[in-house]
Amino acid sequence: MSRFWSELVEKLTPYVPGEQPKGIGLTKLNTNENPYAPSPKVLEALRVEAAESLRLYPDPNGDRLKEAVAEFYEVSPRQVFLGNGSDEVLAHSFQALLKQSQPILFPDITYSFYPVYCELYDVSYQTVPLNDSFEIDPADYRQANGGIIFPNPNAPTGCLLPLTAIASILEENPDSVVVVDEAYIDFGGHSAVSMISHYPNLLVIQTLSKSRSLAGLRVGFAIGDRALIEALERVKNSFNSYPLDRFAIAGAAVAMEDRDYFAKCCQQIITSREELAGGLRNLGFQVLPSAANFLFVRHPEQDAEALALQLREKGIIVRYFKKPRIDQFLRITVGTEEECDLLVSALGEILL
Amino acid sequence: MSRFWSELVEKLTPYVPGEQPKGIGLTKLNTNENPYAPSPKVLEALRVEAAESLRLYPDPNGDRLKEAVAEFYEVSPRQVFLGNGSDEVLAHSFQALLKQSQPILFPDITYSFYPVYCELYDVSYQTVPLNDSFEIDPADYRQANGGIIFPNPNAPTGCLLPLTAIASILEENPDSVVVVDEAYIDFGGHSAVSMISHYPNLLVIQTLSKSRSLAGLRVGFAIGDRALIEALERVKNSFNSYPLDRFAIAGAAVAMEDRDYFAKCCQQIITSREELAGGLRNLGFQVLPSAANFLFVRHPEQDAEALALQLREKGIIVRYFKKPRIDQFLRITVGTEEECDLLVSALGEILL
Repeated sequence: MSRFWSELVEKLTPYVPGEQPKGIGLTKLNTNENPYAPSPKVLEALRVEAAESLRLYPDPNGDRLKEAVAEFYEVSPRQVFLGNGSDEVLAHSFQALLKQSQPILFPDITYSFYPVYCELYDVSYQTVPLNDSFEIDPADYRQANGGIIFPNPNAPTGCLLPLTAIASILEENPDSVVVVDEAYIDFGGHSAVSMISHYPNLLVIQTLSKSRSLAGLRVGFAIGDRALIEALERVKNSFNSYPLDRFAIAGAAVAMEDRDYFAKCCQQIITSREELAGGLRNLGFQVLPSAANFLFVRHPEQDAEALALQLREKGIIVRYFKKPRIDQFLRITVGTEEECDLLVSALGEILL
Repeated sequence: MSRFWSELVEKLTPYVPGEQPKGIGLTKLNTNENPYAPSPKVLEALRVEAAESLRLYPDPNGDRLKEAVAEFYEVSPRQVFLGNGSDEVLAHSFQALLKQSQPILFPDITYSFYPVYCELYDVSYQTVPLNDSFEIDPADYRQANGGIIFPNPNAPTGCLLPLTAIASILEENPDSVVVVDEAYIDFGGHSAVSMISHYPNLLVIQTLSKSRSLAGLRVGFAIGDRALIEALERVKNSFNSYPLDRFAIAGAAVAMEDRDYFAKCCQQIITSREELAGGLRNLGFQVLPSAANFLFVRHPEQDAEALALQLREKGIIVRYFKKPRIDQFLRITVGTEEECDLLVSALGEILL
């Protein structure tokens, strides 16, 4: 603490992201990165940007990328908002749309950045417990609220909510903005973007960090009714005119355009996920049904934190959350086939 | 307006950056970009980043770049904060340090993003008029305040405040954070970074967009006492874990390291600025003394807005601000020698 800090800073408890180890030789299954490289077309477009034109500001509106996203989802570019990773898009959404007189709602087990945004922008919230199967029950969101936000598939559970369930939440809360955070949707779900023309209160947020292998480029976007997008633009333009650099705009646009490469990578990860789930079940793990690029698992006879430490000793990093209800679970990113095999072998040795 | 907007969004008046025209063939002297390309070493480092590793998150702390900045300024990396352009660093500074019970102070004529940040974070402020020579007078800052911020050189005037004057502001306001926004310092001033060990209330903010020709890469930083840096880190880590992508970290680090190229570019711009100032004075313009990469000028017999429009018709864009006290001025970026000659010729024709 310091006498120079604002009152806000004193009470903040910042988010702690998964470890980004600087050494080499570790098998990194802790931050849900894609095990495959970005599309070769993306890398080529990025190389072109390393040029004299970097002396000039990027397009503050990122029109080239908005058009590519709009084309992919068959919406208007004016229904698209861009940000420096989906975390920035989420942050602006809390300030622009979820800060209301009533508390917002989100699951008790979910992306742990949500309560941090609430603290940052003084947004009141109430958590809604997942059911005993660790699923979101739409009926639990039938209560007064200032907004609703949840990931779909949820994190860190991986559980998918069908679009019919999301539609019922939207219909029962017509005066609330409902934010569906689809960071992992491409690994087995259907995007709620298809419903934005029916629900002016629906905002869908996605990232290029996972299914498009671009965590290192920092690009996320939101799609929704123009009034919601305008609110986000107003906050963004009061914060930072140019959050996306020239590389981010150009590389992300090509990533949205190269549909074949994208589909192939996602399919490979889905295949690996199912094989990995089988391998873990064979070792006695309970594996929650996942539509994401990670599995959320527990072993009935093993302490999860101890397992994470033993894996780390063997050079494999997975994510462990010391939190109520999930402190006996591990979240494991689906890696390459080789990485998945390595993980199953290592766990087999530990459990011997 | 929409019923889904937060109360904040309704009252925001976003910042409007200078035009980024998409056509070609225009001479762009309106947003103070560097007329010279980034260092060839920077471009080479950027090309290397267009690789498979983009599937992984960047270092959330940007240690490689913090070390390069620290090395350049002979400070500790723990005295360095990084952001997505200096605009993001400024935004966090308003939320983390300048939001206090008393109003903050800044000049009446200054970077027009400051009042926008105040609105975004509900920071009260009072403007302090520049004197009749359009200079900051330290004596005017001897009044109760919750913090002080000004650019040095000031924008859009270009006028430089000597370090002795900054020291007197720091000494007379020991309980206030004083933010010195040095976006243009490398074109003729001395950085206040040399004083951070003496003044725990001093925060210096810089950008790589101007003197290092990297407006398209979005990198800024702050240097100050560790307590001030920690406040910024706490807000940043409650907002976005990874604001700098892999290109930004790698390219900016090399830009800080290539001192020869940097020095040569800055010197060339200083030389061109003095030649341009002479050319404009010959045409009857009053030219404020500038230590920046732009000139702030007025003509005693010509309307500034009309001049800007006439230049635009000739394919040259300069910046005009329709604001009290400066609505008869033009802000003109110092371009290449050829661009400066083109501007002087065009103005000569207009004034014929």
